[in-house]
Amino acid sequence: MDKFQQKKEEIKNAGMKMFAAYGYYKTTLEDIAGVMGMKKNSLYYYFESKDALFKEIIKCEMQTHLEQQNIILLKKISAEDKTVEIVKNFISFIRERSVKFTIRIKSYLEIVKVIKNSRADFDNSECNILSEVLEEGIKNGEFKKINSKQFADDVKMTVESIINNNYIISDAEFVHEINFDEISQSILRIVKFLIEGIKIQDK
Amino acid sequence: MDKFQQKKEEIKNAGMKMFAAYGYYKTTLEDIAGVMGMKKNSLYYYFESKDALFKEIIKCEMQTHLEQQNIILLKKISAEDKTVEIVKNFISFIRERSVKFTIRIKSYLEIVKVIKNSRADFDNSECNILSEVLEEGIKNGEFKKINSKQFADDVKMTVESIINNNYIISDAEFVHEINFDEISQSILRIVKFLIEGIKIQDK
Repeated sequence: MDKFQQKKEEIKNAGMKMFAAYGYYKTTLEDIAGVMGMKKNSLYYYFESKDALFKEIIKCEMQTHLEQQNIILLKKISAEDKTVEIVKNFISFIRERSVKFTIRIKSYLEIVKVIKNSRADFDNSECNILSEVLEEGIKNGEFKKINSKQFADDVKMTVESIINNNYIISDAEFVHEINFDEISQSILRIVKFLIEGIKIQDK
Repeated sequence: MDKFQQKKEEIKNAGMKMFAAYGYYKTTLEDIAGVMGMKKNSLYYYFESKDALFKEIIKCEMQTHLEQQNIILLKKISAEDKTVEIVKNFISFIRERSVKFTIRIKSYLEIVKVIKNSRADFDNSECNILSEVLEEGIKNGEFKKINSKQFADDVKMTVESIINNNYIISDAEFVHEINFDEISQSILRIVKFLIEGIKIQDK
């Protein structure tokens, strides 16, 4: 990594820590420059705006995540097991980012809304991976003929909703204080029933 | 209804409107007294505290709702249809309250957290109704032998999570601006797959 790239990485890290602590709106490029011991004008050399910086952070995190999801796609296991692994990996992704960046719940809920648009491509790619697994299951006789794209969307939306709802009702201040094992268990119970609903039953 | 009761109802209505607009924490008994053209001291004659007033509002709304859920329990339809009707009725309950009280989304998300404890009994009663329907389905051969209490809890939690998540990601200011038909459709798709997952398939 050259010096320019390395500096960019450092700014992204500092930026994410600020966004996680103070939310998207309250954090300014000036704040981030301050933490980096840089002048705001030098920061523009790396990122043209707060929005551009934020989008690049999100893009990076999500690319890494999508690569992991694609690896599951290639595994030699049943479509059912792949579906469960993809959901598990998605939960781990959310959980790991929360620990990595010490995200305040209030900031998280704000960020969820801010990134809704800039992550649309990513959401689509993730749903496509899941829908590919479902199609595989339909072809090999594991699953009934369902609308795989819609089912994938619904599963992803359900998993995210359960995670976010746990944030809303929690009295914790930081995401990493939340009992993720419990959330994870209830999500996996739900997802297994959903899979059961599309499975062709053994006669 | 005697005069005392009538006044109490008026205070509850005024209170809920304030809570819906300004949230639980920002609303004071003094504000509510002001809107009612009463002195704060006279208000104490009807409710000993903001918390007591709030709890009574929630209790009332939920009792009406539970009565409706109990009527579904008695219908002469399949356990599957009852499950769907109970979920539909729950969605309508949330939707109607939102319109009735013109709830600001920010207030709603705050209230969800505030009432978490005071509505535990209600949540339990609602889950018991759903779990009774599931037991009925297990007995009459519609459903597989599942942990009906846990499944009922999971279904209720999922439905609520999807509704609340739609509130979080929405750019709307008021709950009634949200497209409830769309939410309702995706919830019902999910619930039908969940039911499919516990159904004994026709051979």
